Formats: sequence, C-alpha cells, structure tokens
Amino acid sequence: MAVQLEEVARREFQLPDMMLQSGQWLRNAVLVYETFGTLNEQKDNAILVCHALTGDSHAGSTSGNPGWWDGLIGPGKALDTDRYFMICANVLGGCSGSSGPASVNPADGKPYGMRFPVVTIRDMVQAQYYLVKSFGIDRLFSVIGGSMGGMQVYEWAVSYPQMMETYIPIATCTRFSSMGIAFNNVMKQAILNDPDWHNGDYYGRSFPEKGLNLARRLGMITYRSFELYEERFGLSMVSSDDPYAMESQFQVEQYLSYQGSKLVKRFDANSYLYLLKSMDLHDISRGRAPYESVLEQIEAKSLMIGIDSDFLFPASEMVGTYELLKAKEKSVEYREIRSVYGHDGFLIEFEIMNEWVGGFLEKNR
Amino acid sequence: MAVQLEEVARREFQLPDMMLQSGQWLRNAVLVYETFGTLNEQKDNAILVCHALTGDSHAGSTSGNPGWWDGLIGPGKALDTDRYFMICANVLGGCSGSSGPASVNPADGKPYGMRFPVVTIRDMVQAQYYLVKSFGIDRLFSVIGGSMGGMQVYEWAVSYPQMMETYIPIATCTRFSSMGIAFNNVMKQAILNDPDWHNGDYYGRSFPEKGLNLARRLGMITYRSFELYEERFGLSMVSSDDPYAMESQFQVEQYLSYQGSKLVKRFDANSYLYLLKSMDLHDISRGRAPYESVLEQIEAKSLMIGIDSDFLFPASEMVGTYELLKAKEKSVEYREIRSVYGHDGFLIEFEIMNEWVGGFLEKNR
Repeated sequence: MAVQLEEVARREFQLPDMMLQSGQWLRNAVLVYETFGTLNEQKDNAILVCHALTGDSHAGSTSGNPGWWDGLIGPGKALDTDRYFMICANVLGGCSGSSGPASVNPADGKPYGMRFPVVTIRDMVQAQYYLVKSFGIDRLFSVIGGSMGGMQVYEWAVSYPQMMETYIPIATCTRFSSMGIAFNNVMKQAILNDPDWHNGDYYGRSFPEKGLNLARRLGMITYRSFELYEERFGLSMVSSDDPYAMESQFQVEQYLSYQGSKLVKRFDANSYLYLLKSMDLHDISRGRAPYESVLEQIEAKSLMIGIDSDFLFPASEMVGTYELLKAKEKSVEYREIRSVYGHDGFLIEFEIMNEWVGGFLEKNR
Repeated sequence: MAVQLEEVARREFQLPDMMLQSGQWLRNAVLVYETFGTLNEQKDNAILVCHALTGDSHAGSTSGNPGWWDGLIGPGKALDTDRYFMICANVLGGCSGSSGPASVNPADGKPYGMRFPVVTIRDMVQAQYYLVKSFGIDRLFSVIGGSMGGMQVYEWAVSYPQMMETYIPIATCTRFSSMGIAFNNVMKQAILNDPDWHNGDYYGRSFPEKGLNLARRLGMITYRSFELYEERFGLSMVSSDDPYAMESQFQVEQYLSYQGSKLVKRFDANSYLYLLKSMDLHDISRGRAPYESVLEQIEAKSLMIGIDSDFLFPASEMVGTYELLKAKEKSVEYREIRSVYGHDGFLIEFEIMNEWVGGFLEKNR
C-alpha cells in the first residue's frame, strides 16, 4: 500500500485544535483539499462537494487527471466551473492527505494507527466548516454528496442550518441502517482477521492486503445491483479454468478480486476501519434532540436523489425522510434515478443527475 | 469444531461407486439419512426433503429433538407424518454424517480435506436417487426443499422426470445468480484467508474458526431483509460500550458474531467451501441442452414458492422460471410469501407454507 501523491492542485489546510464528538481532542490535524472554478467577489457561489468512503479531494478534473465526479463538475455541467466554485476536501480520518490513522502522531512522531481518535461524520463536517470559513465564505450556495458524502450533507444541513442556501443528498441517509452496520461489520472483521493487521500497527511492515481486499469485494457487491451482475457477468467462468476444480473461478469472482487488489494499492486499511465506524455512528440526532425535532432545525432548500436499485441505501428510506421534511413544510424535492447500477449510480448516472442538479441549482441562484 | 452424533434415528446408506458430474469417481461414500412417518405398502407416499447449506438430515422431530423443518413436518402438518413418509439425507459433501471433505479417504486413512472431489447439486441428487431406490420406491410423491434444497428439487425434476408426482421448490433457482456467486466468493475467501485453514489440512489441528465465523456472518445478512434488521436491532448499541470507542459494538454486530460462533461448533469449514462450490456450479442446463429445452424435460406438477423480501433468490427470478414453464404448458403454480424475514422465510413462515404445501399435496393425492 502506498498512497500516491500526485501532481495536482491539492492544498493543505491546518485545522485548529478540535474537540471531537466523542469529547476527545484532535490537535495539529490537516485537511487536504482541491477547488474547481473561481470564487466570486460576493463569495456566494461556493459549493462544497463531499466524498464517499474511498473517495478523495480530487472530485473534478485538473490537467487531464479525471476526478471521481468528473461527469458532474466542469464547464457547462451541473457543478459548472464557469459559474460555481467547488471545494472538495479529503475527510478527516481519510488517507488521501487529510489527517487519519496513517498520519504521524505529533506527540511521539509515530503513526497513530488505532490511537487515532474515532471521528464521526459530524467531526468531518466541523473540519470542513473551518476550511469553508478560511475562504471568507459565510454561506455556501450548496452542499452536495452521495453515500457517505451524503451523510455529511445531512449533517451540514443540521449542524449549520444558516450556512447554506441548498443541500443535495444523494443515495444516502440521515442515520445509518442496521443492515448497513451489519455489512460494515463483515468488512471490518475481514481486516481484523488478517494476521498482518497487527492491531493496526502495521506501518513499515506488511500491509494487511488480504483483509482489505476481502472487505472491498463485499463493498463492491453492495454497491451494485442483482440485475447488473446478471447482465455483466452472468454465469461465465474464467475460460481457462476447469469448472469442476475447487480453484476454478467465475468471471464475477475475478472481477471482485481485481477490485480488491486495486483498492489495497491506494487505500489504508486503518482508514477504512475508521470510516466504517463513522458511517456506523452516523445519526443526525445522536446526542441532540429526538430525531424529528432535529429535522425541524433544517432551513436550506433541498433536492434529494434516491436510486431505485440501491439496496444499501434503499430509495424507500430516502422517501421516508422526504415525507417527514415535507410534513414539516420544509422546501424539499425528491427525485429517483432509475438505474441498473444500484448504489454506485451516483458515480455513473451523470446524464440525469446533470439535468436535475443543474436545474435545481439554476432555479435557486 | 466437533460434529456431534446425537441419539436420533439416523441411518447410514452405503452408496455405490459413483461417477460424478466432473467425471471423477467417488468410492465408498455414504449418506446419512432420517425418515419421518411410514412408507405405505404401495410405496407411493414418499416425499424427499432436501436441506439447505447448513442443514442436515434432521428435518423433523424425533424424541423431543426438534428438526429444522419441524413447523412443516408432523401429524396434521403439510408434510403429515400420519399420511406421508419423509426421507431427508445429509447432502454429499456435507459434514453431518454423509461423506464429505472431513471424511476419511479410504485410500490412505486420512481425512480428504481438499482432496475430496468437487460435488455438484446434480451429484447430491444422484446419491439421493440411490437412497430412494433402496427403499423400493419407484416414484416419489413429492420432492421439496428451500434454498440449496430447492436447487436439488429442480435437479430432481430434470434428472428423473418420471420419478416424481410433484415437486416444490422454495426460495430458490434453476441456476445460481452472479450476485449469489459473488457473495459466495466473499464467504469462501473469508475461510481461505484464515491462517488456520492450512489449505484444508487442519484436521487434528486448530480449526479455522475466524474464517468460518466471518463467512457465516455474511450469510446471516443475506438470509434476512433490510426491514427485519431495522425492526429487530435498529441502531441499538451494546449498552455497556462507549459508542465512541473503536471496539464498541452495535447489537446487530453482537448478533452476527454470536451466529458465527454457533456455526463453527457444528459445521466443517471445508464442507462449507464444497457446498458453496456446488451452489456456484448449479445450473440445470450445465452440460445438457440449452436452458429452455432442459425445462421442457420436466414432467411433474409443481408448486413454486417465492418470498417477496428475498434478495439472494429474488422472487422475480422465480416468477421468470414459472412463466417459462407455464408457456411450455407445464402444470405449475406460483405463490409468493409476504414476509419481513427475507430468504430465511422458508424456515420461519410455517403457517402460510402449511396451507399452500398441504393443500397442493392433498389436491394431487
């Protein structure tokens, strides 16, 4: 595992010492971020983009290096770099530049490992708040993100209700689900079971490749749909294999294994554990008021987007939140993407998202 | 891991040497089976019950020891022990008495381990065929089973079309799915990643507990539904835990871990691998004619039962098979259980299954 530092427009932001949701202090932490487009003089055209579990700050394209949300960010696209100023920071606890378990603990000069404090979605959002403020921005035009990024969007809407005009959560939830926590448990345990994990103290030694690879395989299943797997792989086997050998592989198995091996080259196993934990703990009402009163605090206008084939963040759950907000007379729209891609639709279905997100932003300018 | 031999009415059946679907020979193998009810003189009241992945021959109750399908087998129930004669055998490759990888290889007196030949659903059915014939039964009144048991039911209908009056596949498929194979891949790899697995050569040494425990956790997720997990566990944490500690657990996690630890006490890890493989390879058309022509071979009358919340064996897939059979003018009925239990509904929803299965059998007597 080696996180590659690429020659992109990444900058580092020094966070103030932060008291985390847990009550613990995080000191000397940084966020790495990138921006796309230009902040106008009134500083009212800023959009915060929040990334998902294995994402990073490189949401848009720079010098030919495509970002993970390239289909949505750029001239003439919904997140139009000719009109808006997008900020995307690697989350706290991540491993793409921002402080996380692979960072050096200033107290002793060694990597934190499992000594890094637990960070929540709310902590990530608090860190982003300091970053946004550092630009002199008092009010964001929008906050947008899918999956774990969407969890951050909801936390923004509740934590800083007056600091945004609009918010756009996609394929996500206001609090995580029991089944989501269950899948996370299996991914976590896959890493913990790896003898190379060494209680998180593997830096400078063998990386727990097998564990993270296995976790990623399961992730890749839950991000897609039954139909997509049928269409793409069906029951095809790796052609050179004797089907009746125990070690024979179906093409879908080879695909999962390949996806797993790709992730271990770019992602830290401990970060993976910390981000799973942040999702598990995600609940906009945790430590606040009862759930419905917390929703009441939201002020910004929302476009919520669900995906019909998403079984990790079922559209029905998003509709439930939409209906609660509607009943409270909040300004909220709900749209549902019809897609064979499942949860990962938010990284793929750009045509319809450009139309909906672009239209919604235009309407609210 | 110790497979306990209980004092139940289990009997052992010596199989003839069998050529397997792979072309390999399996010699000196046995099936362990149990029967419930009495075979009549005409020998036309026999029903073969096929078990799922971690099931065994103990489908009904004997001397106060409840079977896994106790809700369906017994006096006055759908599989009425006063009228029918049920036979249930542990599958070939299993670990509850029948020959499998934990059995001793007669060639050298050592456990087979991974030297056991790959067995398919079709091989399991062929072994059951010899067992059924040994009773002098020429025609079964029915063949019934859910999940991997249902795969056997379809294989029976295709392999021995004239040997049954009716067949009842529940929450299952005529060929496995790409997503099913994907989930199986993660479960398999969880075992392979366990250093105690030792390429399957762990007998008499440490059992690969962690790997099988992890595999079972994932299984337990896929057998249930999103809604059930929400209802049963919600976001409750283990109360003694500090939520912001990395090692804190949600109740759903404790539940999965408990289910995992229960399975390792009664199931062999290698058997688990072999049975996953048999599911992966399940396809009634494999090595035969094109899929639709294979369906054409079926002669018996069928009641097919799907479960609306099953995401491992989606009801829509069962409906697809039903419609193909209907179009070929086969005698087939389809019914769908509405259940919050997901795939495991076939082990739980006894009231409606008793009504439908009981009525269907009665009608066809």
